Amino acid sequence: MLEAENAFERGEVPVGCVIVDGQSGKIIAQASNRTEELDDPTAHGEMLAIRDAAKSVGSARLPGCDLYVTLEPCPMCAAAISFARIRRVYFGAYDPKSGGVDHGARIFEQSSCHHKPEVYGGINETACGEMLKTFFRQKR
Amino acid sequence: MLEAENAFERGEVPVGCVIVDGQSGKIIAQASNRTEELDDPTAHGEMLAIRDAAKSVGSARLPGCDLYVTLEPCPMCAAAISFARIRRVYFGAYDPKSGGVDHGARIFEQSSCHHKPEVYGGINETACGEMLKTFFRQKR
Repeated sequence: MLEAENAFERGEVPVGCVIVDGQSGKIIAQASNRTEELDDPTAHGEMLAIRDAAKSVGSARLPGCDLYVTLEPCPMCAAAISFARIRRVYFGAYDPKSGGVDHGARIFEQSSCHHKPEVYGGINETACGEMLKTFFRQKR
Repeated sequence: MLEAENAFERGEVPVGCVIVDGQSGKIIAQASNRTEELDDPTAHGEMLAIRDAAKSVGSARLPGCDLYVTLEPCPMCAAAISFARIRRVYFGAYDPKSGGVDHGARIFEQSSCHHKPEVYGGINETACGEMLKTFFRQKR
């Protein structure tokens, strides 16, 4: 939530992400959306956190790690989560318009998806969703 | 193809990508797969080329640009292509196992996909496919 608030304050769509070592509970990466700031359409919070975590672990795979994010991941992020072999995904608000886990491409349900994490959606859903709603209301 | 050969020589899955300004025909970014080298599960050729092109253009969107890649994009890259508003995608070999354009998640066919580029698959398919086959044969 704090990471999402950081993005909100920077004028970015407020989505925040944390990656945690499942054994120690230690945070190994945290990031929020920076697509505007970085001029980078791939700079969603999950992508930045995965890249950062993989770099700090020294491997493109993060099999013991769990990912927390305030919004249902889009198909890009869901596929990256699968490539990274993330163990569990906990997300906040559901995203019927652009989500790729429980909606749309349903990345983890595809037979071409070679690693499917455990997924827990709707965690702290109201607070996560309210922040996004407030952001888009102010943008209009 | 040259970018894919570069990846091959570095021991990476040989997929190469070029992004071209559709008006001038000028190459604005070119990259190949670097997932192993960078310890980055998101470092597919398309992702690196999109990030580079967006940076050089100074915008997260590349609406006048066309993307050429030797292999059918995976769902992660296809979603990034959509976010970047790429105009046309030309790809080489089809990828029934992991592709996300004509197979699996079929990203551009989802109603949650907000921008669908024109797609031309199977361009120079045999040569692109042969390089991948040779690579995986040597890996075994």
